[in-house]
Amino acid sequence: MLDLWKRYPQVDKQLNDVNSLIKKLMVSDNSAIQSLLDDCARQQGKMLRPGLFLLFSQLAQNSTAKTDRLIKIAASLEILHQATLIHDDIIDDSPLRRGTITLQAKYGKDTAVYAGDLLFTVFFQLLIETMNGTHYLKINADTMQRLLQGELSQMAARFQQQPVAAYLDNIRGKTAALFRLACLEGAYFGGSDPTTTKLAGEIGENIGMAFQIFDDILDYSSSTGVLKKPVLEDVAQGVYTLPLLLAYQTAPTEFKELLAKKQQITKGEVRQIAHLVKKHHGTEQAKLLAKDYTQKATAKIAQLPVTPVSQKIAQLAQKLLQRTF
Amino acid sequence: MLDLWKRYPQVDKQLNDVNSLIKKLMVSDNSAIQSLLDDCARQQGKMLRPGLFLLFSQLAQNSTAKTDRLIKIAASLEILHQATLIHDDIIDDSPLRRGTITLQAKYGKDTAVYAGDLLFTVFFQLLIETMNGTHYLKINADTMQRLLQGELSQMAARFQQQPVAAYLDNIRGKTAALFRLACLEGAYFGGSDPTTTKLAGEIGENIGMAFQIFDDILDYSSSTGVLKKPVLEDVAQGVYTLPLLLAYQTAPTEFKELLAKKQQITKGEVRQIAHLVKKHHGTEQAKLLAKDYTQKATAKIAQLPVTPVSQKIAQLAQKLLQRTF
Repeated sequence: MLDLWKRYPQVDKQLNDVNSLIKKLMVSDNSAIQSLLDDCARQQGKMLRPGLFLLFSQLAQNSTAKTDRLIKIAASLEILHQATLIHDDIIDDSPLRRGTITLQAKYGKDTAVYAGDLLFTVFFQLLIETMNGTHYLKINADTMQRLLQGELSQMAARFQQQPVAAYLDNIRGKTAALFRLACLEGAYFGGSDPTTTKLAGEIGENIGMAFQIFDDILDYSSSTGVLKKPVLEDVAQGVYTLPLLLAYQTAPTEFKELLAKKQQITKGEVRQIAHLVKKHHGTEQAKLLAKDYTQKATAKIAQLPVTPVSQKIAQLAQKLLQRTF
Repeated sequence: MLDLWKRYPQVDKQLNDVNSLIKKLMVSDNSAIQSLLDDCARQQGKMLRPGLFLLFSQLAQNSTAKTDRLIKIAASLEILHQATLIHDDIIDDSPLRRGTITLQAKYGKDTAVYAGDLLFTVFFQLLIETMNGTHYLKINADTMQRLLQGELSQMAARFQQQPVAAYLDNIRGKTAALFRLACLEGAYFGGSDPTTTKLAGEIGENIGMAFQIFDDILDYSSSTGVLKKPVLEDVAQGVYTLPLLLAYQTAPTEFKELLAKKQQITKGEVRQIAHLVKKHHGTEQAKLLAKDYTQKATAKIAQLPVTPVSQKIAQLAQKLLQRTF
């Protein structure tokens, strides 16, 4: 993974333990489920949510937090993330979803459904082990609901030119809510005071917003080789993200005919849309918004107690906007 | 619903409150999800799990249990059941699954996935509201895992003549685990002593085993009109239940050619299988096993403190084996 975390040796080391725990928990007697879970494990991502959790857990000086508990909560965040990824993959077959072998295509939809459900159960069990009796159980359940609402809103808006505000609402649920939780829980279970913990949640939300917008920008500006996933996939699936929505606002008539094709759009037409997004500065405008959120995060990070950790958090927030994948 | 519960006026009355609560909780801003949830609500089943929970909650004399809490836990059991039903419905399309409009076919697989996930979240939230800090959270999470493992084993065994013991293991997870939980929680949260509570769980498991076997018998012996769902659907989907497995043991050679067709089996051939199951007394043999489990339940019910409630529980266990749907 995790070049990102190499600069934070303590987090990097703990993330190895998180990974070992996740591998231990992502098991099933069912061979199809196990293969699917192994595939997920191999495609190991950036471990952003557990990494942020662990980094924020260091905010408290002289913390008495037990490492074992922190590792488990960090794992719960990644496992919830993986569960939602697996279920998000079960979309209705789009003719344009060629090129990608989705989990549902490789293993069947039923396997993908149950694999996601299994991870929800593991998530639930980790929470019960680590925070039974605390109000953080409810915060977790409410976050899970927000993730789901974000996904649902995105699904409902497919093939529609939704307003920018609606897009922002969706990603606040779909992505930023879990970043918020990671940072909030990191501060809380690390032993920070209530003011710092509240700030941590707000920082997490703003980092999450910037991260998702940047992710959506990369879908237009990167190449498949660098991004390690097919570019321009969102458009084909009717997910119109910020660069497109902003370019559309500038020149709606140029987009109208292409977007009217909806599910019937061809790969060539998708490339035309990408060209229009570029022509009308959709990605540049989106970058400005991502920077806004990073600045909001940075302003709040400046309110944290000044420690080496808060400096690292500030660096990380900047770094997430410089990545190429 | 619920002719079944008319004989138990207090349970019947409380089930109305459970239903109102479920309707209040099964809501979504997303119109597709809402329609799917409304369909589920309309197809209201027998409310066995919340009904058993409420009946067992009456076992304790002079209980100080708060009705509000009991209604919520009862609702959590039905909602978990509905969530698993919705996800079980997302199987890979079988050519023989005509005639049924499945939720996935009507609303799309993605909608069905998210609707189930939403109900898991509601389930989780109800538990946190009613039993945060107790060890029953873990019991619930473990039960959820057992349900899932039962489903997975059933999926793995599709189109295979599994041993009877493996079938029994599957239904112990898939069905009996939730019946066990309903009765166990009913006794516990109703205020019963530990001995009664433990017995309640065992009674629930045996009732659940008998119930599922009887359900599988009805798939062979009932008609579509009476059962209100297509008969012989399991075979077409490769789910070989007890009547078939027992008949197969008696005369394997007569089945071999037909079962070898697997997914390619025709409706006519499914009827031939049903005929063979009848000829080799598969349903009668299965009924004997169902009666065994009912007798086990009855023997344990006899160990409960003698009250009007324990008599009602004994009646109900018998009644579940006399139903026609």
